[in-house]
Amino acid sequence: MATINLGVIGLGRIGRINSRYLLGRAEGARLAAVSTRRPKAAAELLGQTSSVKIYTNYHDLLADPAIDGVLVVTHTHTHHDIVIAAAEAGKAVFCEKPIALTLAETDSMLAAVEKAGVLFQVGFMRRFDKGFAAAKQKIEAGDIGTPIVAQSISRDPNCPEPDWAAPANSGGMILDLAIHDFDMFRWLMGDEVQRVYAEGGNLTCPALIQVDDIDTAIINMRFANGGLGYVEAGRNCRYGYDIRCEIRGTEGTLKIGYLQDTPVLTLTPQGVTHDTVAWFEERFTPAYHAQLDHFIDCVQQEKEPLVGASDARMALHISLAATQSQTQGRPIHVAETQDV
Amino acid sequence: MATINLGVIGLGRIGRINSRYLLGRAEGARLAAVSTRRPKAAAELLGQTSSVKIYTNYHDLLADPAIDGVLVVTHTHTHHDIVIAAAEAGKAVFCEKPIALTLAETDSMLAAVEKAGVLFQVGFMRRFDKGFAAAKQKIEAGDIGTPIVAQSISRDPNCPEPDWAAPANSGGMILDLAIHDFDMFRWLMGDEVQRVYAEGGNLTCPALIQVDDIDTAIINMRFANGGLGYVEAGRNCRYGYDIRCEIRGTEGTLKIGYLQDTPVLTLTPQGVTHDTVAWFEERFTPAYHAQLDHFIDCVQQEKEPLVGASDARMALHISLAATQSQTQGRPIHVAETQDV
Amino acid sequence: MATINLGVIGLGRIGRINSRYLLGRAEGARLAAVSTRRPKAAAELLGQTSSVKIYTNYHDLLADPAIDGVLVVTHTHTHHDIVIAAAEAGKAVFCEKPIALTLAETDSMLAAVEKAGVLFQVGFMRRFDKGFAAAKQKIEAGDIGTPIVAQSISRDPNCPEPDWAAPANSGGMILDLAIHDFDMFRWLMGDEVQRVYAEGGNLTCPALIQVDDIDTAIINMRFANGGLGYVEAGRNCRYGYDIRCEIRGTEGTLKIGYLQDTPVLTLTPQGVTHDTVAWFEERFTPAYHAQLDHFIDCVQQEKEPLVGASDARMALHISLAATQSQTQGRPIHVAETQDV
Amino acid sequence: MATINLGVIGLGRIGRINSRYLLGRAEGARLAAVSTRRPKAAAELLGQTSSVKIYTNYHDLLADPAIDGVLVVTHTHTHHDIVIAAAEAGKAVFCEKPIALTLAETDSMLAAVEKAGVLFQVGFMRRFDKGFAAAKQKIEAGDIGTPIVAQSISRDPNCPEPDWAAPANSGGMILDLAIHDFDMFRWLMGDEVQRVYAEGGNLTCPALIQVDDIDTAIINMRFANGGLGYVEAGRNCRYGYDIRCEIRGTEGTLKIGYLQDTPVLTLTPQGVTHDTVAWFEERFTPAYHAQLDHFIDCVQQEKEPLVGASDARMALHISLAATQSQTQGRPIHVAETQDV
Repeated sequence: MATINLGVIGLGRIGRINSRYLLGRAEGARLAAVSTRRPKAAAELLGQTSSVKIYTNYHDLLADPAIDGVLVVTHTHTHHDIVIAAAEAGKAVFCEKPIALTLAETDSMLAAVEKAGVLFQVGFMRRFDKGFAAAKQKIEAGDIGTPIVAQSISRDPNCPEPDWAAPANSGGMILDLAIHDFDMFRWLMGDEVQRVYAEGGNLTCPALIQVDDIDTAIINMRFANGGLGYVEAGRNCRYGYDIRCEIRGTEGTLKIGYLQDTPVLTLTPQGVTHDTVAWFEERFTPAYHAQLDHFIDCVQQEKEPLVGASDARMALHISLAATQSQTQGRPIHVAETQDV
Repeated sequence: MATINLGVIGLGRIGRINSRYLLGRAEGARLAAVSTRRPKAAAELLGQTSSVKIYTNYHDLLADPAIDGVLVVTHTHTHHDIVIAAAEAGKAVFCEKPIALTLAETDSMLAAVEKAGVLFQVGFMRRFDKGFAAAKQKIEAGDIGTPIVAQSISRDPNCPEPDWAAPANSGGMILDLAIHDFDMFRWLMGDEVQRVYAEGGNLTCPALIQVDDIDTAIINMRFANGGLGYVEAGRNCRYGYDIRCEIRGTEGTLKIGYLQDTPVLTLTPQGVTHDTVAWFEERFTPAYHAQLDHFIDCVQQEKEPLVGASDARMALHISLAATQSQTQGRPIHVAETQDV
Repeated sequence: MATINLGVIGLGRIGRINSRYLLGRAEGARLAAVSTRRPKAAAELLGQTSSVKIYTNYHDLLADPAIDGVLVVTHTHTHHDIVIAAAEAGKAVFCEKPIALTLAETDSMLAAVEKAGVLFQVGFMRRFDKGFAAAKQKIEAGDIGTPIVAQSISRDPNCPEPDWAAPANSGGMILDLAIHDFDMFRWLMGDEVQRVYAEGGNLTCPALIQVDDIDTAIINMRFANGGLGYVEAGRNCRYGYDIRCEIRGTEGTLKIGYLQDTPVLTLTPQGVTHDTVAWFEERFTPAYHAQLDHFIDCVQQEKEPLVGASDARMALHISLAATQSQTQGRPIHVAETQDV
Repeated sequence: MATINLGVIGLGRIGRINSRYLLGRAEGARLAAVSTRRPKAAAELLGQTSSVKIYTNYHDLLADPAIDGVLVVTHTHTHHDIVIAAAEAGKAVFCEKPIALTLAETDSMLAAVEKAGVLFQVGFMRRFDKGFAAAKQKIEAGDIGTPIVAQSISRDPNCPEPDWAAPANSGGMILDLAIHDFDMFRWLMGDEVQRVYAEGGNLTCPALIQVDDIDTAIINMRFANGGLGYVEAGRNCRYGYDIRCEIRGTEGTLKIGYLQDTPVLTLTPQGVTHDTVAWFEERFTPAYHAQLDHFIDCVQQEKEPLVGASDARMALHISLAATQSQTQGRPIHVAETQDV
């Protein structure tokens, strides 16, 4: 099978995880080019002997006929233009989550993708985490009967930069953080979210008040088939990066997640202690790698990605409904939710 | 200090836990009398050599001048009459939760207690559980900073008898089960619940549909000082009795609960397995004992119980608000909630 | 079935655990008498209303015809005389471990028991611990195939009084502590120990050097059928009371034990912490109770106790062999071991 | 800093782990050549676009002046000739454990290394495992006081090929498996093993009887400063690859290891279950990578490796003593042990 050439657009932390992994792959795919506004940092990352092209304008990268597919891992508000340009250039597209901040933008992006007939995958990397993937398999094997209640906790270890977090840029904390939980719920419950109700507040990151974003939210939801779900999402979790999910079924329950990073316990008169997972890269780097393997696999074999256009849109839709519920103080039906 | 004489009114499962414990106490208090409709079962429980009086009418027990205090551990709908009679008879009163099904009944009970000037304790035994009590101490010691988010899961292992569960008898699942979670939240957060929103459904116990009770609920809430809370309560948890609580603070988090009953792990090619806690008596019998110790201590020393009249009323009030939110599909302010 | 009358000889910590439990039993058995040199402490323990007789000489207790059986829970070096007197008085005998410090004493005790035809049970309470008992059941059910390796760790939380620990009184640390591990190995492996090798030293309790006792030992052993076993026993474990056992079989492994006392986890930037079990009463009080229930049951129903004369002797025999191996620095066959 | 060129001699499972990692490194070091008897498998591993030279004779690789250092990851009995040739060729040498099967060979290898003045590192990769390394740091920080007892369990998940396992080839199970435990004990205890006693047997892999190797061993030891240690090593552990270590200090204890591979718990009426680590690559691949990083770092910066010639010799010496103790049935002093 031919080795494919990939371009990475954006060299932020997600772009770097993906680039480093591509550099280390021996076969199947190679990192052919990156596009970044900071070419010096790129050169440092890529090493002196690298044959990877460095562009400062993504249009130039898209114009390179050797490139088979691109990873769009830039700021969310830029996804719209880049994805459409990439689709029109005939490239397979991997787009980091969230796909966009509005349904309107999303719909025009997905229309472009469909018109061009290019492959599209969205960055819900939890689907490729060993734990979440095993849970999905167990559910499909019937190990817990019919799923009836979904729980998820996403606690981020720090406060974001207010400018970055401002809802106009990030879409707000629920969209930024809980969109992963919503995608997991849809996947693991095998059902669609019908109604959401969210409470939120400013409890841990005072600097976010000035940009009108919250730092903590709890979100209840009802699924189309009657199942129930709830999410806690929050910033500035002092003990680390804590991502947990639980699916209760009629015959059993699955718990996904872990908190221990280093396999050492210290036993003293003060008790038994272990450390925690400090940061998302410790927890999910293998999932980012497996996600990229899947994209490469789909491009090479012309397969449909596990998590595509409609998944990107639905998780955004739920996020918008939950965000509006939080500001309006009332339950909201997802189907009736529109861009603000 | 004089040994006090206690009477137990009702010999259901909670009455039996309390009676057995009193029989085994060497000093401080003794079981002087029980009141039950099934005197034969009582005689069997108490043993042939017992000097405990067996009444079939609680009024006779209350008329016994040797009795210093009573445990009212009968069906909820009978609490009102018994507690008022006990107060009027000048007995110290321990009343199992919930105190009553309505605020109206509760208010007349508490008025009688206050008028008589008798001691009153309500049966929120989780306050006496080693885990919950340690969490309270750690919060007061400042170990987690200011509490900001409360989470609780109460999964009961089976489906109740429909007749017993009918909301007219039990008050409905939220009142029956989640009232414990609400009391813990008030205690551990050191705050009052302001607003609740509940989703519920019939997902695990079909026989409850005919009596109009739900079997699963998720309840969001906002506290007066801005904190957030959420509860999952449910029936028919196939893997056992799972009671967990988590208090997130600005500086750390406390997790309360455990699932393992027998200290054995089995390691085979199928994985590593331990059993679970099957039933509330395995999990909370020591808490019931400590709760009774506290009642005896308060009676002997004329101290105010840790959990009294206002706690009984507030937890009922939140339960009523959550129940009404679930049926009405909208967030409800506790302060505005009235009996249906 | 008739209620039996028991006498407790010795009111040290084990005597008190047993006495308190007997006081709380409603039926089947009653604490009829105690024998102790400190009658005031006994009166305090028993309460003002107690009908329990208090003797200061065990011969008087044994002369009481109402007594059906006795618990011999005195210092080890007194077991010999008391057990023989109790047997000659026709009482059922429960004797705390170790049965004696020498095989010679043991043999004369067991001869007296046999001659009198009285029931005899020895105090290896781990056989009645929920965890160890479940492991035994799983082994017998074939869950781990044939047991091949036994591991045990017994870490005691403090240093004993040197006078008490002196080998002339206690038999030395291996006999005092590891005798429990040896009994568990015989029971769980279903096999006899053939050869032992022990290393030991003074690593944590310097005051024991003056009385010629060690504070830490590791003991290897070979079983008659080829299986292997090893024990670590030690004093002054700063983080608590840590008792663990592991049985590896051809098809799986069982791990018995736990370290957490209070069901609370504290999560902070310093890590995730829980407390430990501080003392043997927290860990094994239910096992002491179950052990006594078994003795009562055997007396009432004239059944053979689960753990009797030959078990008492064999565990002592292994302990003597291990102790001699440690001092002589060579492997020793149990069958060839004699009193020093 | 100049990128160094490395050659890998041997492409068994350890050779492949190292080669794949070198292929993925962006800078600092590159895989320049491999030597293997199976050049086709090498070409497949390296990919079609690879610039890595493939030799079928290690002498040719050593003759390549571009090569700065070599990884000797061949069968143990070949280490002697290759390491001496590599040293004479002036290459930095990484040698997989055990360095050799005899002290005589080891001494001639180390003499050659010393004479050539080349850097030498031996493959005790546990020193680079996150858990073991954290334990070492905690010990040095004084977190557990003075280390006094070391425990280690090494259970391998399957039975080796008898031909491979024959002591003439592998040195026997104790040398093959427990040498890692011995190196950890020396490192974590900061002390030397003085005396060992081993029991062993054929309990799980009957096919090894014909080649005169054991499959299970327990080894006691005494350290020069009085500390104690014990190891259980065994084959055919049905539930997975279980590597654990425990260092007890005067003030606390450290436990290293973990058994769970996938972060999912399944809760059903049969209990709570998680999977296990099935194979050493799941457990230690990051340690192999970190070990190689250290070797590269030492070569680049002309630093002394953390684990060098004397460590390789001492762990072998203890392994030989333990092996002889097991066959002779008596405690053996390491210092007096010679090749058989």
